[in-house]
Amino acid sequence: MYASTPIGLSNLPTTPASKPNPPQPFSITAHQADQSTMDPDAEPQLRKPKGSSQLNRWSRARAVRSGRKLDRPVHRAETTVEERPPARWAEPTSPGALGGGDEEVFGVKSIYMVSDGTGWTAEHSVNAALGQFDHCLVDRGCPVNTHLFSGIDDSERLMKIIRQAAKEGAMLVYTLADPSLAESAQQACRIWGIPSTDILGPITEAIASHLGVSPSGLPRGAPGRSSHLSEEYFRRIEAIEFTIKQDDGALPENLHKAEVILTGVSRTGKTPLSTYLAHKGYKVANVPLVMGVPVPKTLFEVNPEKVFGLTINPVVLQTIRRARAKSLGFSEEIRSNYSEMDYVREELEFARRIFSKNPSWPVIEVTGKAIEETAAVILRLYHDRQNKCSMPKISKRY
Amino acid sequence: MYASTPIGLSNLPTTPASKPNPPQPFSITAHQADQSTMDPDAEPQLRKPKGSSQLNRWSRARAVRSGRKLDRPVHRAETTVEERPPARWAEPTSPGALGGGDEEVFGVKSIYMVSDGTGWTAEHSVNAALGQFDHCLVDRGCPVNTHLFSGIDDSERLMKIIRQAAKEGAMLVYTLADPSLAESAQQACRIWGIPSTDILGPITEAIASHLGVSPSGLPRGAPGRSSHLSEEYFRRIEAIEFTIKQDDGALPENLHKAEVILTGVSRTGKTPLSTYLAHKGYKVANVPLVMGVPVPKTLFEVNPEKVFGLTINPVVLQTIRRARAKSLGFSEEIRSNYSEMDYVREELEFARRIFSKNPSWPVIEVTGKAIEETAAVILRLYHDRQNKCSMPKISKRY
Repeated sequence: MYASTPIGLSNLPTTPASKPNPPQPFSITAHQADQSTMDPDAEPQLRKPKGSSQLNRWSRARAVRSGRKLDRPVHRAETTVEERPPARWAEPTSPGALGGGDEEVFGVKSIYMVSDGTGWTAEHSVNAALGQFDHCLVDRGCPVNTHLFSGIDDSERLMKIIRQAAKEGAMLVYTLADPSLAESAQQACRIWGIPSTDILGPITEAIASHLGVSPSGLPRGAPGRSSHLSEEYFRRIEAIEFTIKQDDGALPENLHKAEVILTGVSRTGKTPLSTYLAHKGYKVANVPLVMGVPVPKTLFEVNPEKVFGLTINPVVLQTIRRARAKSLGFSEEIRSNYSEMDYVREELEFARRIFSKNPSWPVIEVTGKAIEETAAVILRLYHDRQNKCSMPKISKRY
Repeated sequence: MYASTPIGLSNLPTTPASKPNPPQPFSITAHQADQSTMDPDAEPQLRKPKGSSQLNRWSRARAVRSGRKLDRPVHRAETTVEERPPARWAEPTSPGALGGGDEEVFGVKSIYMVSDGTGWTAEHSVNAALGQFDHCLVDRGCPVNTHLFSGIDDSERLMKIIRQAAKEGAMLVYTLADPSLAESAQQACRIWGIPSTDILGPITEAIASHLGVSPSGLPRGAPGRSSHLSEEYFRRIEAIEFTIKQDDGALPENLHKAEVILTGVSRTGKTPLSTYLAHKGYKVANVPLVMGVPVPKTLFEVNPEKVFGLTINPVVLQTIRRARAKSLGFSEEIRSNYSEMDYVREELEFARRIFSKNPSWPVIEVTGKAIEETAAVILRLYHDRQNKCSMPKISKRY
């Protein structure tokens, strides 16, 4: 599978797929790395360090960002979308699985993420950056595998992973709070010619300098690092529990206790949005608008500044509802009342009339928006109303 | 408030708090910035550009990371914790609110985060980096305000924010997908002597180079960027809705449909953990273990590889339960049955016996762990069991 997609930077040698070579525990110290005394026999398939390859790579990247064409032609996949399985969590046969280093498949580029904490910062940043390549990820023009290794707080496991990255021709992204581990990673990547990016180091250094305080160098969960069970932590837990209890119009008598109230017709994303905002510490209630079902009176009695209407394009809504009606096994009658275009339009109009009678509720168009995007819009407006400043922003105190 | 905390890098002049000077819309082009032709009258309170200040700052930061003392003494706050309000969302009077630039308070350091997308990547990274300063954040030794500006996709608003950052002596962190905006930000910060960190640029460039594909330069939600309504998106929505329906032992007949099942006594964090994992795309069910209440039979019939037990230190559990009993207004009788030490210990022992009868369930100690940390441990184990490889990792395909 995935075998016919030669793409990009083909000058970088990668491991022959036919040669099984399970990785062995391997450790490198900063001192060893500095002296470049790596035993070549121990690393037969590593890419050789090249003086200028990193620089070349960066100048290519800069060219890429400036809109200029790369000097090296990029071979796009000629296979069609149908020939590839849909994006999903990798199964046991995922390419490049450690302990089965013989499964590498040409064309699929790997990104290794290593963290001595949870790894979520690396994952979040890589996800955000990959969003810049949607144009070729969506059609599988540049298939990418990511592999997240979390809780890697010793040099031995770190080097085992970097060695595997080298064999696989992967790039490495790391968030290592321990400065000596971060330095080892950087040096090993330099020696083995692995493109690498330190996600946490630069921002931590900048903050250290700004505050005039040394960073602890301790990853999340390390002994000695302060506990997270702060007041804010409990506030967040409370927000999540409140939000779940209020889901789908439950307990309308509690709407006054919510900080944010979302309202809209079915399938405008109220529930996922509510729990997303709850994890950011907001108590959220959501009230469904269903034609023919009375809207709870309390919705019109609460502070209107905390109410947000959600709306969506009728064609998109119909498509989403049809899929849902099918997956829930609705009867033909219910289905037509839920996902037929006339009904969908009428219900959206019903919602629109309610929104127009409550002009201080912002109405947010969710069509094509990810949960995170709608959440950003809502919180911007929410804080704007709270702070009454000229430029909406979300402020926190630490 | 906060007035008596002179701290760090005091050589950087900041705006006198007594001089109201509301920011005006201001725009800078890359060309203007390059030529350093800024009108000094227009920026009377900006820090002057200094040739080597950035370098000095970085070498100080490096010293800080290596454990060496800064050459500049850091004055820690002498005020006690009680004299400061608890950490919470900033209220309308938050220092440094734009449009009220006269509210700056010495001692509180500001971090401005600017994004042309949602801003969540900047927020996530800054949060993670601030975790390295827990040792002085917890006791308010180095109070920090963060200000997140999202959806900033034009130069005018960007420059208004950077100008305000300069006035306030803040540092700037940015995630700007549009390369010309990112360059403007970098140049304006350099000219005005603002410490700045580009969060998204380096990782995007590295990935562009690795894939041999140009980034789109389009922020999230920009017209032309691919829609997020992918199969994975709907899978995530479904996981969230499934998880909410299954919360707190509801619908035990559906346990076989869950991908992850969490079980443990009350207040081990099952609900927040469930919704957190759901947002990562996993269908989660949670089953409470309550002494005297039969455990649903189906818990023992499902694939044991997806069940995770949660346990917690009894003293910590008692503290958490007492706070909860109080906030929920439990009667004295219920309260003693819920949060008294004998009962707490007995119930944990009841859970322990169930866990020991099911030795293939991993039992995770959640004491002092944030939701994200426990989630990282669970997903590591979960993927390890799925992939059976030598080094636990979470893999995805894009």
